[in-house]
Amino acid sequence: MHSFQALDSQYIKINLLNVAKNYLKLKSMLKDASVVCSAVVKANAYGLGIKEVSEILHQYGCCDFWVMNIEEALIVRETSPHANIYVFQGVNGVEELKAMLHYKLVPVVSHTRQLEIINNFPNHPIEVILNFDTGIGRDGFQLEEIEQLNLKYCDIRYVMSHLSRSEIKEHPFNEEQLQAVKSLKERFPNSKFTFSNSGGIFLGQNYHFDLVRPGGALYGVNILEGKKNPMLNVVEFNASVLNHKIFNKAHSIGYGGTYKVNKGDKVLILNTGYYDGYRRVLSNKSRVYAEGFYLPVIGVVSMNLTAVDANQLPDELFHTIKNVELIGEKITIEEIAKLANTDQREILTNLQYNCKRIYIK
Amino acid sequence: MHSFQALDSQYIKINLLNVAKNYLKLKSMLKDASVVCSAVVKANAYGLGIKEVSEILHQYGCCDFWVMNIEEALIVRETSPHANIYVFQGVNGVEELKAMLHYKLVPVVSHTRQLEIINNFPNHPIEVILNFDTGIGRDGFQLEEIEQLNLKYCDIRYVMSHLSRSEIKEHPFNEEQLQAVKSLKERFPNSKFTFSNSGGIFLGQNYHFDLVRPGGALYGVNILEGKKNPMLNVVEFNASVLNHKIFNKAHSIGYGGTYKVNKGDKVLILNTGYYDGYRRVLSNKSRVYAEGFYLPVIGVVSMNLTAVDANQLPDELFHTIKNVELIGEKITIEEIAKLANTDQREILTNLQYNCKRIYIK
Repeated sequence: MHSFQALDSQYIKINLLNVAKNYLKLKSMLKDASVVCSAVVKANAYGLGIKEVSEILHQYGCCDFWVMNIEEALIVRETSPHANIYVFQGVNGVEELKAMLHYKLVPVVSHTRQLEIINNFPNHPIEVILNFDTGIGRDGFQLEEIEQLNLKYCDIRYVMSHLSRSEIKEHPFNEEQLQAVKSLKERFPNSKFTFSNSGGIFLGQNYHFDLVRPGGALYGVNILEGKKNPMLNVVEFNASVLNHKIFNKAHSIGYGGTYKVNKGDKVLILNTGYYDGYRRVLSNKSRVYAEGFYLPVIGVVSMNLTAVDANQLPDELFHTIKNVELIGEKITIEEIAKLANTDQREILTNLQYNCKRIYIK
Repeated sequence: MHSFQALDSQYIKINLLNVAKNYLKLKSMLKDASVVCSAVVKANAYGLGIKEVSEILHQYGCCDFWVMNIEEALIVRETSPHANIYVFQGVNGVEELKAMLHYKLVPVVSHTRQLEIINNFPNHPIEVILNFDTGIGRDGFQLEEIEQLNLKYCDIRYVMSHLSRSEIKEHPFNEEQLQAVKSLKERFPNSKFTFSNSGGIFLGQNYHFDLVRPGGALYGVNILEGKKNPMLNVVEFNASVLNHKIFNKAHSIGYGGTYKVNKGDKVLILNTGYYDGYRRVLSNKSRVYAEGFYLPVIGVVSMNLTAVDANQLPDELFHTIKNVELIGEKITIEEIAKLANTDQREILTNLQYNCKRIYIK
């Protein structure tokens, strides 16, 4: 006799308590209490919810947040009226600058046009983060530009730079960038500095300077790829079982028929697919976890459905199982990112915004 | 002298008028006026906005919509009070069934447990879509199960099946599935049938039966991969230029330093990255379009930033350019999907839900 309960819908569970614990752990690694541990909550806190994440971190003592743009800044400002909020995209127009000053947001200044906006503004000085490119080759002034910069209207809160290979601890480029930052330090002897992202924190205390900017590590990304993850897991992504299917004959599975099952094979059909952020590249590659068993994904992941081989499951369990873990304690973000041949952070930011979310705090 | 206008933010422009035109074009391909052209608007209309899409299609005469679940159905019900709404995930509990009946939603019945829920419900008959698996190997009853099915409480609106290789026109499996559906037709001689997705419509009129269910083609997916797209483009995904950078010396670009520029090279830094749905796999592979020029993406696509080689741009244009097309008329979804080694639909559903959207209608 089957029960007629409604389908347990899929969900993404976000453990905010573990975000807070990760924050405290990173903070405990810093050179001393004078180093500020900020939090990068840009990109909707890597897709996990900027409001919820900044709120819990603020409760646990974080007073410095990094966001992408003004829209994100205002979300953080609401939950943390007195926090320092730094805006990566900086200020790209006069109206934007007025809004930033009104809400006490600090723009990152990364190129001449942004500096000109500051310099042409009537009220001075204006607090900024002054961003130099010591190797990322993306945003930030080039070191050779220093002498031409007119900084007299800037109140520099931090001189900033960004690591480009920090997750490979032994990469000589880290040391090169460190030396470049030290040379900047000579140029700005009275300024505070911020250099390290999550990876930088693990490179050692000489990388910490005055403020560190962890992002991924807060959300459970394994910075020490391939080694034991020093951070706690934050995300649990679960799918519901839509159908428990025993095949009556040999049959191909999914679009293009890339996998074949035999007569008698047990297959679970899950209500989750690439629309939800369970990426199509995982087709015939990844596995899900359920009640002590790892079940391989078979066939092509569809937009809203995924099939898994459930032959290992005892009959009773096969017929009653309702949920499986796609990502979580047993199937790490790192495992999925490796199979998807991408960065762990893309797995996080790719999770469907629309999906039901449960916040643990 | 630079202008100080605010940064033109990135946006996703969705041409609803072209969705409607695509719908009318597909409808014109059908066997005759008795064949119903429905619209698959599940998965938030493939990520493009279920409310907006169903609304315009309803205005253009579409009265039959397919959604994933009740939540989506209710969005369509609001804009189209009298439309037929079919729910792919079907009914998975008594309360769900009550809600479906209340809102006049028609569940797809794909397996025994769902059929039992119907059969155990006091009010009969209940309108359903009866789903058979003729080859997709995913959802749907197996043909061998027919004799055991107790269908006396079902009012079958359509018998349904789904193609698994419809985008490869010459694939013999299409014909095999067609034959299986024809054999079902003998078993249910008085029932109406629905079989074809977008691809099926292009396989020929013998695949159309009583109702067709296009999805991707409505949204500009090229069903005839590699050939000229018969559908109109729907999505335009634009990024803003954050920084116009001329390198003072040879420099590596992005995380891991996977690309090197030389002294004097011109690079545009865009405010869009994999968070926004511009996938990381496109790193060093794809190109963007701006004012007659195709500019290659260089280095690794970051979460919120992408660098492009802008050496081809004349100086004046390089310094003033504000926007580039990532996906649109010039850079098709098909091109991006091919480079990303995935299905065109995943490119659509992966676009950031949070991103600013502009609807053309």
